[in-house]
Amino acid sequence: MAKVTVENKTLVYPMPAFLIGAIVDGRPNFMTAAWSGIAGGTPPMITVALQHHRSLKGIKQNMTFSVNVPSVDQVKETDYCGIVSGSKADKVADCHFKMFYGKLETAPMIEQCPVNLECKVVHILDVGSHELIVGRIEETYISEDCLTDGKPDVNKIKPIIYVTQSSRYRALGEVVASAYTIGRELSGTNPTV
Amino acid sequence: MAKVTVENKTLVYPMPAFLIGAIVDGRPNFMTAAWSGIAGGTPPMITVALQHHRSLKGIKQNMTFSVNVPSVDQVKETDYCGIVSGSKADKVADCHFKMFYGKLETAPMIEQCPVNLECKVVHILDVGSHELIVGRIEETYISEDCLTDGKPDVNKIKPIIYVTQSSRYRALGEVVASAYTIGRELSGTNPTV
Repeated sequence: MAKVTVENKTLVYPMPAFLIGAIVDGRPNFMTAAWSGIAGGTPPMITVALQHHRSLKGIKQNMTFSVNVPSVDQVKETDYCGIVSGSKADKVADCHFKMFYGKLETAPMIEQCPVNLECKVVHILDVGSHELIVGRIEETYISEDCLTDGKPDVNKIKPIIYVTQSSRYRALGEVVASAYTIGRELSGTNPTV
Repeated sequence: MAKVTVENKTLVYPMPAFLIGAIVDGRPNFMTAAWSGIAGGTPPMITVALQHHRSLKGIKQNMTFSVNVPSVDQVKETDYCGIVSGSKADKVADCHFKMFYGKLETAPMIEQCPVNLECKVVHILDVGSHELIVGRIEETYISEDCLTDGKPDVNKIKPIIYVTQSSRYRALGEVVASAYTIGRELSGTNPTV
C-alpha cells in the first residue's frame, strides 16, 4: 500500500465541534473549537487548544470555562460562533442561547446544547501557535430529554462531527460494532484473551 | 429545558478510536485510545492520555509514538488492540498489521490504517490517573488510495467514531452543512459578519 505525506499534519478523524464558553470582560462568550480531547479519567480532564482570541483572555481572567456539545440542530449557531468574533457581535443574543451556570459560577453553559462540561483550568501549556488549556471537569450536565432509561442516548444527543480539510459538519452514521466485543473474534489467534 | 448531572464526567461526542504505536522493549506494540485531540497548529501538536500501560513505557523509552487512524474495515483489529495487553499477545502478528517507519525510526505505523501521524514527545503531564502525552507531529501520511484529486477523501478513509458510554463504534453519517458557510445565515442579526 503506497503512502504519501500530506501538508496538513493535523489530519485526524473524527474531530468534534465544541462550543467553548467563557466570561470575557464580564460578558459571556462562546467560540467553536475542534481541537479538544479528553485528557484523563480520575480526576476527569479535558484539553482545548486556543489561539489568542478573546475566549483565551476570558478563560485566564476566571480560570474557568465550559465545553458545550452541540447537536446537529445547532449546526448553524455552532458555525456562527466559529466565524464571528465576540468583539464584533453578541453571539449569545444572535444565537438565542439560553444560558445557565453551575457551581463554578463563571463558566457559562448553553441550555440548548445536550451536553455541558463545567471546567476549572489546571494547566496552561504554550505549544506555539496555540495555548493548550487543560481543565478539570467539575460537573457534566445533560438535557433530560436526551436520556433513555436514565442513560445518555447518543441518538437523541445527535452530535456534530467536524470533518477537517473538507470543512464539513456531519452526523453520526450506522453502528459498525460493539466495543470490547468484536475484537474477541481475533482471540482464536491468541488463547489468552 | 431541564438538565441533570451525570456520573461519567468525560462525556463528549464524538470521540475517536486511534491506534497508538510505540516500540516497547524493542518490540512494536499498538493500543487503542479514544482520549486524544489536536493540541496546536504551528507546530502541529496532538495529545494522548495514557494509563501506566506498556505503551506509555515504550513512549518514554524512545520519546516517539504514532497515531494511526483506522477505518471501519479495521474495527475488529482496533477493538482487539484495546482489550488485549501487549505483554500477553503479539498484537502486530494477531492483527496482521504491516508496519512502516518514517523519519523518527522508532514510531511504528500501520500500513492498513489510512492516516498515520508520526510524533515526537514534547511534554508529559501527570494529570492523575493518566499521563497526558503532548506530541509534535513530525509527519503525516495517508494511503494513496484514500485521495481524490490529490486530497484526503473522508469517504475513502471511512473513520471509526467511538461512542462513549454505549461503547459502540459507528461510521460517519450524512453531511449536515458546510463549515464557515452555514453560520453566515445568522449574519442578518449582525451586519459586521
